[in-house]
Amino acid sequence: MTSSDTPSSFDFNAYCVAHRHTVDTALASHLPPENQPPEILHKAMRYSVLAGGKRLRPLLCLAACEACGAPAHTALLPAIAIEILHTYTLIHDDLPCMDNDDLRRGRPTSHKVFGEANALLAGDALLTLAFEWLARSQPHAPRTSADLVRTLADAAGHRGVIAGQIEDLAAEGASPSAARVESIHRLKTAALLRAAVLLGGLSAGADDDCLAALSRYGEAAGLAFQIADDLLNETSTPEQLGKAAGSDREREKMTYVRVFGLEAAQRRAETLTMEACDALSKFPGSVEPLRAFARYTIARKS
Amino acid sequence: MTSSDTPSSFDFNAYCVAHRHTVDTALASHLPPENQPPEILHKAMRYSVLAGGKRLRPLLCLAACEACGAPAHTALLPAIAIEILHTYTLIHDDLPCMDNDDLRRGRPTSHKVFGEANALLAGDALLTLAFEWLARSQPHAPRTSADLVRTLADAAGHRGVIAGQIEDLAAEGASPSAARVESIHRLKTAALLRAAVLLGGLSAGADDDCLAALSRYGEAAGLAFQIADDLLNETSTPEQLGKAAGSDREREKMTYVRVFGLEAAQRRAETLTMEACDALSKFPGSVEPLRAFARYTIARKS
Repeated sequence: MTSSDTPSSFDFNAYCVAHRHTVDTALASHLPPENQPPEILHKAMRYSVLAGGKRLRPLLCLAACEACGAPAHTALLPAIAIEILHTYTLIHDDLPCMDNDDLRRGRPTSHKVFGEANALLAGDALLTLAFEWLARSQPHAPRTSADLVRTLADAAGHRGVIAGQIEDLAAEGASPSAARVESIHRLKTAALLRAAVLLGGLSAGADDDCLAALSRYGEAAGLAFQIADDLLNETSTPEQLGKAAGSDREREKMTYVRVFGLEAAQRRAETLTMEACDALSKFPGSVEPLRAFARYTIARKS
Repeated sequence: MTSSDTPSSFDFNAYCVAHRHTVDTALASHLPPENQPPEILHKAMRYSVLAGGKRLRPLLCLAACEACGAPAHTALLPAIAIEILHTYTLIHDDLPCMDNDDLRRGRPTSHKVFGEANALLAGDALLTLAFEWLARSQPHAPRTSADLVRTLADAAGHRGVIAGQIEDLAAEGASPSAARVESIHRLKTAALLRAAVLLGGLSAGADDDCLAALSRYGEAAGLAFQIADDLLNETSTPEQLGKAAGSDREREKMTYVRVFGLEAAQRRAETLTMEACDALSKFPGSVEPLRAFARYTIARKS
């Protein structure tokens, strides 16, 4: 990740590299080992989680924890929990009965490598493990553990990500609608990015004002991120994306670009980024990382 | 449910009818309503959960709570949480890429009614909602909430039910093995029945001795239940089962009957039932319901 317009005193790129390394190391050590039975399940879980990726959700979680005045490692288990939950959504989304995608992050999708049944179960296992990690994450603050589980379940479940996937499937080929695309994007993407920063805040023991501000930040930055995704899907090469470009258009997906056009979508993403940054006025810790993330979501190239 | 050899002072049938009514009412009121979007998701969730069924897991959860000296309603939310988690395993198990079953409890399976994508997502949503309910279940005892989430995730995840499903799929058509069938049954069925009684005990604030005894009870009764299931699959009519009889044999599933024969399987189930009852010696509350359940698991006709 690079962000050219962050203050020179804060090195966003170095921040991301360091935290991403922490996250990748924690994921590798916390996921069940491949040589433990059932081997194929554990292989499939690790294959999809350890395939790289930006680690945006865990990094946002750690940055929110720091903004609320606690060291990043306080939120490490919740951070990797939200990453494996995100991975489960990708595995199930790629299945033949859903989007039927062959490639993800430049590699064959889980069901292409392990078969449909194992991919389905690897997704189920990652979803389950995410809640187990949250329940284990704050042994000395059990109320926080319960809040973490509630927050993630709320964002990932029938009122959040899954509602978004249902609406997304129902909208394929339907006539473009501004209200509909915004709803899908809020549910399918923004809900989980908002949860990521809330998990960070909760882990830090943040007060209600900080949590409310994180919620506004996550909602706006999350929506901006998905609009930027729509823009990238139209304008990038397959090499940049790690999957077929223009695939949303071919599938008549309900995207921001399709509804509003390229320029209006770009402007909306910029406005949302400003809204996200405006939410960062009163935090006890440094908000530079969160501000840089908001700017990065629309400046990124993949 | 009927159990002819329970003491006359305890009416097991009336107990089951009353508690099943409580469970069914709680499920109907806690599941998201059908007229709330996304309607098709909520319809699919309710279709599978409210299809009847024995409600064995929630009833065991409530009975364990009472055995530990607390009123049954203390464990009501965990009881219905484990039922919707069980329902998710059935929906995903029935999918074409898994067992490809058309009938469940005498009705078309979820994917037959709602399509594969919606069935997949309804299962995901039920799994997620189960953890949300657990996290909300003990607002005044958050440590218990965290323990409930850990316990259910442990039983349902990559070390429990999902490991059992992977082993089950891998064992289809393989040569019969006593160790293998016992491992599959312990993971696929006993793990969740054991979790059901543990959730009841945890909700009651049970001490470690009671929890350990519940664990032994659940493990033995759970294994007996699955062996009885194998016996019923061989000896029942399709009307009794609500699905095709003898389907395990046709699919060369690894069953107790296939490995040990009918008589030895029956004897093993009886021994396990005695083991389960032996674990019930020191509880502050009434253990009659748990004892009756253990006997019922092998006496049932469906």
